[in-house]
Amino acid sequence: MTHPKSGLTPDEVQALDFSIQRVGTPTLESGLRDVLFIQDDERVSYYADPRINRDLEGRGLTPPAFVVAGPRRQLFHDAAWTRAAIVTCGGLCPGLNDVIKALVNTLYYTYGVDNIFGIPYGFRGLVPTYGLKPLELTPDMVDNIHDSGGSILGTSRGEQSTEEIVRTLDRLNINILFTIGGDGTQRAAGEIAEAARARGLAVSVIGIPKTIDNDLNFMERTFGFETAIYTAAPVISCAHMEAKAVYNGIGLVRLMGRDSGFIAAHATLANSVVNFCLIPEVPFELEGPRGFLPALQRRLEEKHHAVVVVAEGAGQELFRGLPEERDRSGNVIHHDIGIFLKDRIKSYLDKQGVESAMKYFDPSYQIRGVPARGTDAIFCLHLAQQAVHAAMAGFTNLVVGYWHGHFVCIPTALATRERRRIDPRGQLWQSVLQVTRQRDVWAPEA
Amino acid sequence: MTHPKSGLTPDEVQALDFSIQRVGTPTLESGLRDVLFIQDDERVSYYADPRINRDLEGRGLTPPAFVVAGPRRQLFHDAAWTRAAIVTCGGLCPGLNDVIKALVNTLYYTYGVDNIFGIPYGFRGLVPTYGLKPLELTPDMVDNIHDSGGSILGTSRGEQSTEEIVRTLDRLNINILFTIGGDGTQRAAGEIAEAARARGLAVSVIGIPKTIDNDLNFMERTFGFETAIYTAAPVISCAHMEAKAVYNGIGLVRLMGRDSGFIAAHATLANSVVNFCLIPEVPFELEGPRGFLPALQRRLEEKHHAVVVVAEGAGQELFRGLPEERDRSGNVIHHDIGIFLKDRIKSYLDKQGVESAMKYFDPSYQIRGVPARGTDAIFCLHLAQQAVHAAMAGFTNLVVGYWHGHFVCIPTALATRERRRIDPRGQLWQSVLQVTRQRDVWAPEA
Amino acid sequence: MTHPKSGLTPDEVQALDFSIQRVGTPTLESGLRDVLFIQDDERVSYYADPRINRDLEGRGLTPPAFVVAGPRRQLFHDAAWTRAAIVTCGGLCPGLNDVIKALVNTLYYTYGVDNIFGIPYGFRGLVPTYGLKPLELTPDMVDNIHDSGGSILGTSRGEQSTEEIVRTLDRLNINILFTIGGDGTQRAAGEIAEAARARGLAVSVIGIPKTIDNDLNFMERTFGFETAIYTAAPVISCAHMEAKAVYNGIGLVRLMGRDSGFIAAHATLANSVVNFCLIPEVPFELEGPRGFLPALQRRLEEKHHAVVVVAEGAGQELFRGLPEERDRSGNVIHHDIGIFLKDRIKSYLDKQGVESAMKYFDPSYQIRGVPARGTDAIFCLHLAQQAVHAAMAGFTNLVVGYWHGHFVCIPTALATRERRRIDPRGQLWQSVLQVTRQRDVWAPEA
Amino acid sequence: MTHPKSGLTPDEVQALDFSIQRVGTPTLESGLRDVLFIQDDERVSYYADPRINRDLEGRGLTPPAFVVAGPRRQLFHDAAWTRAAIVTCGGLCPGLNDVIKALVNTLYYTYGVDNIFGIPYGFRGLVPTYGLKPLELTPDMVDNIHDSGGSILGTSRGEQSTEEIVRTLDRLNINILFTIGGDGTQRAAGEIAEAARARGLAVSVIGIPKTIDNDLNFMERTFGFETAIYTAAPVISCAHMEAKAVYNGIGLVRLMGRDSGFIAAHATLANSVVNFCLIPEVPFELEGPRGFLPALQRRLEEKHHAVVVVAEGAGQELFRGLPEERDRSGNVIHHDIGIFLKDRIKSYLDKQGVESAMKYFDPSYQIRGVPARGTDAIFCLHLAQQAVHAAMAGFTNLVVGYWHGHFVCIPTALATRERRRIDPRGQLWQSVLQVTRQRDVWAPEA
Repeated sequence: MTHPKSGLTPDEVQALDFSIQRVGTPTLESGLRDVLFIQDDERVSYYADPRINRDLEGRGLTPPAFVVAGPRRQLFHDAAWTRAAIVTCGGLCPGLNDVIKALVNTLYYTYGVDNIFGIPYGFRGLVPTYGLKPLELTPDMVDNIHDSGGSILGTSRGEQSTEEIVRTLDRLNINILFTIGGDGTQRAAGEIAEAARARGLAVSVIGIPKTIDNDLNFMERTFGFETAIYTAAPVISCAHMEAKAVYNGIGLVRLMGRDSGFIAAHATLANSVVNFCLIPEVPFELEGPRGFLPALQRRLEEKHHAVVVVAEGAGQELFRGLPEERDRSGNVIHHDIGIFLKDRIKSYLDKQGVESAMKYFDPSYQIRGVPARGTDAIFCLHLAQQAVHAAMAGFTNLVVGYWHGHFVCIPTALATRERRRIDPRGQLWQSVLQVTRQRDVWAPEA
Repeated sequence: MTHPKSGLTPDEVQALDFSIQRVGTPTLESGLRDVLFIQDDERVSYYADPRINRDLEGRGLTPPAFVVAGPRRQLFHDAAWTRAAIVTCGGLCPGLNDVIKALVNTLYYTYGVDNIFGIPYGFRGLVPTYGLKPLELTPDMVDNIHDSGGSILGTSRGEQSTEEIVRTLDRLNINILFTIGGDGTQRAAGEIAEAARARGLAVSVIGIPKTIDNDLNFMERTFGFETAIYTAAPVISCAHMEAKAVYNGIGLVRLMGRDSGFIAAHATLANSVVNFCLIPEVPFELEGPRGFLPALQRRLEEKHHAVVVVAEGAGQELFRGLPEERDRSGNVIHHDIGIFLKDRIKSYLDKQGVESAMKYFDPSYQIRGVPARGTDAIFCLHLAQQAVHAAMAGFTNLVVGYWHGHFVCIPTALATRERRRIDPRGQLWQSVLQVTRQRDVWAPEA
Repeated sequence: MTHPKSGLTPDEVQALDFSIQRVGTPTLESGLRDVLFIQDDERVSYYADPRINRDLEGRGLTPPAFVVAGPRRQLFHDAAWTRAAIVTCGGLCPGLNDVIKALVNTLYYTYGVDNIFGIPYGFRGLVPTYGLKPLELTPDMVDNIHDSGGSILGTSRGEQSTEEIVRTLDRLNINILFTIGGDGTQRAAGEIAEAARARGLAVSVIGIPKTIDNDLNFMERTFGFETAIYTAAPVISCAHMEAKAVYNGIGLVRLMGRDSGFIAAHATLANSVVNFCLIPEVPFELEGPRGFLPALQRRLEEKHHAVVVVAEGAGQELFRGLPEERDRSGNVIHHDIGIFLKDRIKSYLDKQGVESAMKYFDPSYQIRGVPARGTDAIFCLHLAQQAVHAAMAGFTNLVVGYWHGHFVCIPTALATRERRRIDPRGQLWQSVLQVTRQRDVWAPEA
Repeated sequence: MTHPKSGLTPDEVQALDFSIQRVGTPTLESGLRDVLFIQDDERVSYYADPRINRDLEGRGLTPPAFVVAGPRRQLFHDAAWTRAAIVTCGGLCPGLNDVIKALVNTLYYTYGVDNIFGIPYGFRGLVPTYGLKPLELTPDMVDNIHDSGGSILGTSRGEQSTEEIVRTLDRLNINILFTIGGDGTQRAAGEIAEAARARGLAVSVIGIPKTIDNDLNFMERTFGFETAIYTAAPVISCAHMEAKAVYNGIGLVRLMGRDSGFIAAHATLANSVVNFCLIPEVPFELEGPRGFLPALQRRLEEKHHAVVVVAEGAGQELFRGLPEERDRSGNVIHHDIGIFLKDRIKSYLDKQGVESAMKYFDPSYQIRGVPARGTDAIFCLHLAQQAVHAAMAGFTNLVVGYWHGHFVCIPTALATRERRRIDPRGQLWQSVLQVTRQRDVWAPEA
C-alpha cells in the first residue's frame, strides 16, 4: 500500500536518504535574539501514525523523518563576507516576488547580509555568453515588488551548462545560491551543488520549490497554489453563466496540471458548479457505457447545461500512438486535451442530433501572472525565511519542504524523485466525486 | 464633416426622423407621487453647441432633438390589465440580470403591474414549436439575480418568424414587450412592433440596447461596458507580467469589438502597460516602413517585452479575398485576427532571428459572464426604469438611449441604422496614441 | 423652477459669467498632428433642450453655454520654457495618482514639457516656512503610481497665504499650476490666479475638481466617485449579512456626503439590500407618524432585519441649537449622525421593548484610499489631458468641468459658487425611494 | 517547555484523554464505494518528532495521539431513519454557509440522509419559548448559499437551557446534531451530549469549531481565517495610503483577536506596510524607554508616517484596575484598546509638540460578513465531510480538529480546554518582528 501523500510504498520510503548535506562545520554564533533555535537532531516523522514508527522500531528499523527547518544557533557563513544570489526559473507562479522580497529582507535584516544579487532570466543569467548582468538587490528595491505578479528577475526555460554556472558562481564569489523553480530546476541545482563541492567551493545551494500544479513530492503545499485556486474561481463561474445562458450550453475550462490534477480537483471543490472534472490520474474513455461523452449528453438532456473542467495533462491515453515532444526544460509537451475535447464534444453531440453551444476557457496565463495574496503571501515569506536559515547554517543541496504542517529540509535528490499525484481512492478525489456527482455516470477503468 | 459621436454628416442628421410612435392616446392618470413628470415636448438637442442650432433655425430648419425619456403624467396601459414580457437575446453582457430585475421591480412597485413574464432563450421562447414555457416573474424571484452574471432567462441567437412571435404575444395577451439585445434584436423588435400594429394590437415594444462593444448609435454608453473594461484590466496586467518575465516576451490579448475598437481602446487607456492597440477603425499593414511587425521588433529590441491588445474585428483588410461567413444572427463572422497575429508575429520574428516568447490571452467569455457592478449596475437600473416609463405611457418601437448625459427615446429604426465607430482624429484615439506611443512607429494609411 | 442638475433658477443662470480668462494671446503653433482642434468659439449649451434656447433668443438673451475643453491650434506657453507644478489638496480620493500621472505624461509626451514639479503636502509645499522641497516629476517616476491609492505628493488641509504662494511660483519660475482639490482648494486657486495676474505673472492656474461626494457644480461626474460606489458595495453587503444573521439585526452604514447624499443614494441603488437611505437634502424626524424610528421598528417587526445607509451630513436639523465647528479647510464639521443614530436607535427600540442587535460600519477612509479603476481611471486621464490642453493654450482661473457628457472649461468662480445637491423630486431620489420602499413609511416634511 | 502549538507542557499533555465517545456500537455496513476507510485505531501523533515518542515509550508511557477522522466501514446511524440538525452560534465568520451546504450535501448524497433540519438563530432555535421553527434543508435549498456571507440559519449568543435543548432533540427525534461555533458553543454541545446520554438518547453531537481568531486548541487552522486575512489586506493598504498622504499621518487599524493575536500577526505579515503590531500575548508599555508612544514618535520623525495594527484584546494590562464585563456568551468584554490608543497617541504627540493626523479603521464586521473563498471554502467542505463521517459512525462529544495537516477527532472537553496563543519566541512572532522591525524600539517586558 502506498502512502497517501507521497505515493511511495513502505519499502521505497525505508530506502530513502533523509540526511542533509553541509558545506562545512558551522562555527559562528548566530546573532539572533529571543528565538527558539532548532536543534540539529529535531525531526518531523514521515509517518503521522505513531503505531507505524513503533512497528518499524520493533523490527529494528529507524522511522524515516525529515530534518526540521529553522534558525540554527551555529552558522557557517559569515554575513559580512556573504554574497548571495537568487534565481527564478521556469513558468510564472503567484508569489515569486514575495519569495524574492523575503529572501532579501531576511538576509539583510535578520542576518546582516548586504551583498545580494538577482540573476536575470533564470540560469541564463549565470552563463556569460548571454551577456546578462546581475542586479544588486536591496530592501528598498524590493519594497513593493510583492504587489505585482511575475518575477522581477525574469525567468527562462531550458538547461544551461552546470560547469559554466559554477564557474560564474566562483568568479562572482557567490557562496549562497537560492534556486526558485520546479523539479527540473532543483535537479539542476543539485548538480550545481555537487559540482561546486567537487571544485572545493563552499556554496550553499538551497531550493525553494515552485510548482503551480502543487505536485512536488514531500510538499503538502506549494506557494502560489492557494492564489491559483482563488483566481480560477471567477473563470469557472463565467463558464457556468455562459453554459446556463443558452440551451444545452457547455462551459469547458482547461486548467493547469501536466501530470496531476490538483488544480483541477481543488478548483472543482471550490466551485460547486462543475459537473465533470477530468484529471491525469483517472483515465477515461470517450464513448461506451462509462464514457464521458454519453455522460455529458445525459447531463444535457437532464439540465440543459454542463460545466467541464479538464487538467491539461488529462486523457493523454486518448492520444496513444502519437509522437511525444518535449519543451526546452525537458518536460513532455502534452497533447492539447482542451482543444481535442472541444472538437470531440461538438462532433459527438452533432452526430447524436443534440443541439449544443460550447464556450471554451483557457485561463492558465491569467492564473500564473497574478500576485500572491493573504495567507499565500505569508507562506512565501516563511519559505524564504527557512531557506535563508538553512543557507546561513551551511546546509546545501536541499529544498525547503512542508510536511505535516511543519517546514522541513528535504535533500534535493529526494524532492525531485517523482511527482506527487492524486490517489483516486483518497479523500480529495472522493470529494470531487461527491461534488460533481460524476461517479455514477463515468468512472476509472484503470 | 461628420459628428464625432454619431459619425453622421449634418445632412444625414437633418434627414433623420426623431419622432416616437405610440400605440394609442394615453388617458389614464399616473399614480406616481412627488415626481417630476416629463412633458411630451421636452427634448435633448442632438447638437451640444447652441450655435449650430441657431444656424439651423436661421436657415429655417428644425434643430434635431431626441424625445426625453421619463415618467409621464398620462398613461396608456392600465396596470391592472397589463401583461408584460421580457426577452434577452444574443451574447451575454454584464448587467442583463440587473435590467431584468429592475424591469420587474419598476413594473410591480412603481406601477402595480403584477403579470410579468420572462421569455426563455430569447425569441425562441415566443415560438411555440420550441415548446418553451414563459416564467412568471415576481419581485421575490428576482431579488438576488443581480449577484450573478448571465441572464436568468437564457438567450439565443438567430432569427425567428415575426409572424409567429406576434401571434404568441396576441395569444398570451402581452401588451408590453421589453427586448434586451443588440441591433439585430432591436431590428427584429421593430418588425414585431410594426406587425403588431398592422394586426391592430396595442403592444408597446420597448428596446433596451445591449452591446458589450459599446457601439450602438445614439448611445453614449451601454450597460455592461464599464464592467467589461474593469474585468479586462487584470488580464492585461497578467499579459504584462508574462511579457516581462522572459526575454523578449510578448503578451497578446484579444478583446471583443467586431466593428469597433471601443473596448480595446478603453482597456488600453485603463492599463497603461499596452504598447500596441489594434482596432477595426484604423487599418494597418504587417510589414513595410509603418508596419506593425517591424515596430514590434523595434519595441522588443529596446525594452525586451511588449503588450499588444487587438480587437477581434481589427485588421480584417489583411484577410482580403477570403470568403465571408455569417453567424445565426446574421453578423459577419470575422476572421480570427488573434490567432492570425499570434502566428504571424512568431514567424516574422523567427525569420528576423529575434528570439521571442508569446503568451496569448482570449478572455472574451470571462468578461461577458460576470455580474455588473457599482455604477454600471445603477445604469442598468435607470435604463430599465426608463423603459417601463416609456411602455406604460404607450410608446412603442423605440429603444432607450443616452445622449449628452440624458436618457432619451430613440426610434428603433434610428438606433439600428448604423454602428458607432471610433474617429481616429478624436480624443479617444488620440489618447490611445499618447498612452501607447505607437504613433511614431505605425499609423493609419487609410 | 430650478435646473435639475445645477439647482439654479433661470434668472440665476442668466446672470452667470461663462467666459474664460487667458494669461495672454496664444501665438505659438501647436505641434499636435492628426488632431481635431477645438475652436475657441465652440460651446456646450447649458440647457439640453433646444426649445429653451430658442425661447431665450426670442427674448433677446444669449443662451448660456460653456467653452469646450480640448486641444487648441494656437498655444500661449512655450513647452521648452515651461515649468509646470502640480499640487493635491484636501482629503484622499481614488484617482489622484492617475491624474498626476496623466498630467505628467501629457505635458511630457504630448507637448514636450520636461520641467514638471510635484508640490509636497498641498499648498503647504508652496510656503517656504514649511521647508518642503518640490519633487521633479518624470514619466518614469510616475509610471506605476496609478496602482496605488492616495497621492504620491501628499496633501494637507487648511489655508495658506496666497501672497506667499505667488511669491514662490514667481521665484521657481512656475508658469503653469495644476490644482487638484475641492471647492476650497479651487477658490484658493482662483485667488492665486488673480494675485499672479495682479503681479504681472503669466501663470495659468488650472483646477481639476476633486470631490468624492460628487457634488461640485457643473460637474456631472467627478473622478473617484465611480470607484467609491464600487468600493462601498461589499461593506453594505456585510451590513446586510450581519443584520440578517441575528434576530432583529440592524446594519448601520455611515457614508461620505457632508452636504449632499450622492454617495449614499448611489450606494443604495447599487445594493438593493438597503431599507433606509438618509441624506442631507431630505430632512427627517426621529419619532412621530412619519418618523424614522417607528418606521425602522415596523420593518423589524415585518422582516426581523434592516439595513440603514446614512450620509455623514444627513439629519443635521436634529442637532439644531448645538454649536458649530469648522475644520482647517473651513468646512463645517458636522455632528456625527452615525454615532448619534446608533445610540438613538438602540435607546428607542429598548424603550419599545424590541430586542435588536446593531452593527455599525464607517468605511469612509477605506473608500478614499483605494486606487481608481477601469473607466474611472480613464476619466482621470481625460480630465488631466483637458487640463494640460487648457494650460498650454494660456487659459487660467478655470477648472475642467463635465457637462452633458462633454469636457468643458468652467470659470473657477462659477465652479465654486455653490455645491450641487440631490433634488428630492428628481429621478435619482425617486429611484432610491423605489428601491428602498421607504416612501410610505417615512417622507420629507420640508 | 511548552509545546509550540498547544502551549501545554509535556506533563499536561500526558494527562490528556484523547479517546472518543460513541453513542453505540456501529453495526451497519457503509455503502461507500472505492473509498479508503479509516481504521478505528489509526492515529495522528501529538508530537511530530519521533524521538519524543521513542523517549516516552522508553519510559513506559503511551505517546499521545489523536483519532484520525474519516469514513468508517461500520456505521451506527441508519440513514433511512436519521434526522440530523445543524445549528450555528456566536459571531459571523466566513464559511458558515459553506459548512452548512457541505453538511447537507454529504448527508444527502454520500449517505442518503434526507431529513435535515436547520435550527434558526443558534441554540435559541432549540428552545420552544422562542417560537422559532426549524427549516427543512435540501441540496436544492443550499445550492447557492456559499456565494453569500453570514449564515442562512442565523445565530445568537448566550446560554440556553441544556435540559430544554435535549428535550427538543428528543421530541424532534434528532439523532445527529452538528454544532458550528466557538469554544462556548462546543462546551454547551458537550453538555448536550452528556445530557442526551444520561437520558438514554443515542444522539451524536459533533462540533465544527468556528473561531475567526484562529485560536482554538488542537486546530492548526480554522475555517474563515484565510478569508479574514485576505479581506483585511485592502483595509491595511488604505491605512497606509492615508498615513502617507499627510505629514506625520498615522493609520491605526483595529482587528479581531480577543485573547490572541493570530489575525493581527498574519495580517501584518501579509501586508509589509505595518510598522507596529500589538497583540494580547505581548504586553507593552505606553511610555518609557521601550514604550510604544516614543517609538511611534521616532518612527514619525524618521519617515513621517506610520501604520499600527492592534488586536482588540491587546494591551489589556493598561486597563488594570477597571471593572470587568462579560457578554451574553460569557466572554469577557475587553476594554476598547482601539479607541484608547487613538486618544492616547493624539494626546501624547500633541504634548510633545509633534503635529500628526490620525485615521482610524475598525473593519471587524466587514471581515466577518464576507463569503469564504477558494481554498478556505474547500477547507469548510472537508470539515463538514469529516463531521458527517464521524456522526454516521456513531461518534459523539467531539469536534473535528486539524493537526499536523490531518483531520482528527478531538474530544470536546479537550478542544475547549484553553485557547491557543502566539508564542513570542516562535517563528510567527519572530517573523512579525522582522517585517515590522519594531524589535529594537519596543519589546516585551513580561
